Amino acid sequence: MKQYKYLLQEKDLPTHWYNILADMKNPPPFYRHPATLEEMVNPPMPPPVFPMALIEQEFSKERYIEIPDKVRDVLKLWRPSPIYRAHRWEAALDTPAKIYYKWEGVSPPGSHKPNTAVAQAYYAKEEGLEGLATETGAGQWGSALCFATQLFGLKCKVFMVTISYHQKPYRRILMETWGGEVVPSPSSETHAGRAILAKDPETSGSLGISISEAIEYAVTHDGWKYSLGSVVNFVLLHQTVIGQEARMQMEMAGDYPDIVIGCAGGGSNAAGLIFPFLKDKLDGTRPDLRAIFVESTACPSMTRGIYAYDWGDTAKTGPVAKMHTVGHGFIPAPVHAGGLRYHGMAPSICALLDQGQAEARAYHQNAILGVAVNFAQSEGIVVAPETAHAIQATYDEAMACKESGEAKVILFNCSGHGHFDLAAYDAFHRHDLPDYELEQIKIEQALAELPQIP
Amino acid sequence: MKQYKYLLQEKDLPTHWYNILADMKNPPPFYRHPATLEEMVNPPMPPPVFPMALIEQEFSKERYIEIPDKVRDVLKLWRPSPIYRAHRWEAALDTPAKIYYKWEGVSPPGSHKPNTAVAQAYYAKEEGLEGLATETGAGQWGSALCFATQLFGLKCKVFMVTISYHQKPYRRILMETWGGEVVPSPSSETHAGRAILAKDPETSGSLGISISEAIEYAVTHDGWKYSLGSVVNFVLLHQTVIGQEARMQMEMAGDYPDIVIGCAGGGSNAAGLIFPFLKDKLDGTRPDLRAIFVESTACPSMTRGIYAYDWGDTAKTGPVAKMHTVGHGFIPAPVHAGGLRYHGMAPSICALLDQGQAEARAYHQNAILGVAVNFAQSEGIVVAPETAHAIQATYDEAMACKESGEAKVILFNCSGHGHFDLAAYDAFHRHDLPDYELEQIKIEQALAELPQIP
Repeated sequence: MKQYKYLLQEKDLPTHWYNILADMKNPPPFYRHPATLEEMVNPPMPPPVFPMALIEQEFSKERYIEIPDKVRDVLKLWRPSPIYRAHRWEAALDTPAKIYYKWEGVSPPGSHKPNTAVAQAYYAKEEGLEGLATETGAGQWGSALCFATQLFGLKCKVFMVTISYHQKPYRRILMETWGGEVVPSPSSETHAGRAILAKDPETSGSLGISISEAIEYAVTHDGWKYSLGSVVNFVLLHQTVIGQEARMQMEMAGDYPDIVIGCAGGGSNAAGLIFPFLKDKLDGTRPDLRAIFVESTACPSMTRGIYAYDWGDTAKTGPVAKMHTVGHGFIPAPVHAGGLRYHGMAPSICALLDQGQAEARAYHQNAILGVAVNFAQSEGIVVAPETAHAIQATYDEAMACKESGEAKVILFNCSGHGHFDLAAYDAFHRHDLPDYELEQIKIEQALAELPQIP
Repeated sequence: MKQYKYLLQEKDLPTHWYNILADMKNPPPFYRHPATLEEMVNPPMPPPVFPMALIEQEFSKERYIEIPDKVRDVLKLWRPSPIYRAHRWEAALDTPAKIYYKWEGVSPPGSHKPNTAVAQAYYAKEEGLEGLATETGAGQWGSALCFATQLFGLKCKVFMVTISYHQKPYRRILMETWGGEVVPSPSSETHAGRAILAKDPETSGSLGISISEAIEYAVTHDGWKYSLGSVVNFVLLHQTVIGQEARMQMEMAGDYPDIVIGCAGGGSNAAGLIFPFLKDKLDGTRPDLRAIFVESTACPSMTRGIYAYDWGDTAKTGPVAKMHTVGHGFIPAPVHAGGLRYHGMAPSICALLDQGQAEARAYHQNAILGVAVNFAQSEGIVVAPETAHAIQATYDEAMACKESGEAKVILFNCSGHGHFDLAAYDAFHRHDLPDYELEQIKIEQALAELPQIP
């Protein structure tokens, strides 16, 4: 009798987050101040836009950090999440590979994002805050934060890129249903927004502008702080519940992955699955484990960018970090996988890539949607375009197994559903996906604007 | 430590469907022929538009009917589904009631519908068919059938009410992603469709027209049959996996429901949860169990209609059944809960209502969306407007407990998510829901058109 799902009970929910920095011989270097470019050696990071507990986590070297009971209590609304064995897809691909996927789409907002949103809302509440401000593109992150703040009795203010606000109303409605206040960005509520609107009243907005507005809103309103959905250490930390659960589930299945895979924009869902396994590679237990971070060819920081210091945000108001980057001024093509359009990458992932502990690869939008349809027709699940990048890498590895006859164990993070991204599938069915060419020259121009740090 | 979810393993998936007709002292009377009005005593029902195995199930008096292994194998892609204890919502309502809900939104199409779609696709494949034709309104049922037929290598042709086809593209895209062919109905592919289009080229269509087209398509194409998503016995039978799982899960939770609740359009999700519990009331083990079927005030067959013979479809091509009906010609207001706009009700549910074994009630759209938002803000889950009717009934019972101080155990079927129905929530937030008054006179006119059967 084939088994499809490996389910944990609530008592199996991890009690601690796993901090990979404790196990890295060479962790990423310190952040630099956005203006002076000096090393930011200790917390608090100026400006203290985040709750203090999160800043402490950002700099922590503790291997395990306890998850507060109230956070675990909310996570139980959907966690532990299932691991599936893709029996039907394996048969369709006729591959000897054994394919598993961790299914994070079961959360109410439909992705891995609430794993950190809940923790961030909890610490904001503990600090006595009134609300959290954030930015969102298509709304994946914004909806996760509204869901989380609502449950802790906090307000949430979301600056949503104006073109998405108007073109993609569904996630906006979801945010409002969870009590969030959503404004199209640039808005007239901040200096940053008004300045942009004065220059270009018809602007479609950008994530960089929305970040600036959210930070300004947070620092100019008493009782408010800012919330970020990826890239930084504490966010990746909160996502490690995924990989810790997955380790238990793979043990139930009697397998250990040869290859672990995740799509990476800022890197948090991939790190969440991969880091708890990568621990075994770092300590020498599993030297042959392969970890693959998958990005979009539209924004190829890991595969076509350089490993250097760069600002984390377009407006250069946040810290400078050493990371793989295509330059903070690079504007990627408007691919449907909006979550993979970040110019940089989590510094901890970049250090691991640089040290040869992980691999990166990039795929084109047209390819990944084809394989996502193929996956949906076998497994039923219609994934987000971001997630489809991880599926494409899994497909390639499974086909390599077919070629070589090896029965490798592949585990990927199925990070979210595509219920609000069906326009991408529609464009694919109608052969109406705009093609894009990577403009290498644009990357070179953007890289010329990096800070000069020896 | 509070427990939120009660999860079963795949080995616990029911091996048989439960047929309540075996336990009813007075089962519903025979169907009547749509033209002659004569009793249809034995299978096959003319015309044999369904696969033969389903027609046999329709007339079966066996208490338990074995679920084929290949059907169980597909159900495992999401079943057993979880039962949740609504701790957060109970606290928000400050009620002593213990509220549980069975969460059917975890299926890939997002509702309970695939429980029968998978079985129907299996029997169609076993019979050597090429494809199944069906109708769909907003697309809940159509997407479930495309999902199921795809997995069994069958084709699926869906006649989608033309106004929904154009206004609600997301479920159409979902159907196409699962390999279905979707045409706006009325279409030029059938006599029935062409006749309507000739009279009114700009018609917005109706479910009645789409049913006629799907049946015509099935009977005029070799290797094709018709598929139906609710009302008839075999569909309700297939849904009883819900209630059988729920019995095991309530036992894990150490509780037995005082009240079981489901929303009812044709009645299949409600019956799926309720019938396996109602067995205990019928055999005298649980005489006080209350079963509540909840409908929309826009189409109040159980609460404002009559219990009489009526045609199951508007075009009077299908069998006549004894049921609660507002008349086959009644056209309900265009409420967002499109699944609750059927003029009749499953005959088995109607017989149970008539015999005092169950209760019915109706709610207005504006009320149910308010309580759905309230539920989403406590439990996270954003439900379909249909499901919101069950939540409203649960709310009322929980508030009655608050009044009386009783700690009753309430279990409702959370039949589907609202990811493709967010326009309803948006209208609610903006106080922009069209109100409707029940037009009793329209019901009386429709009831005047019932067949004259003594």
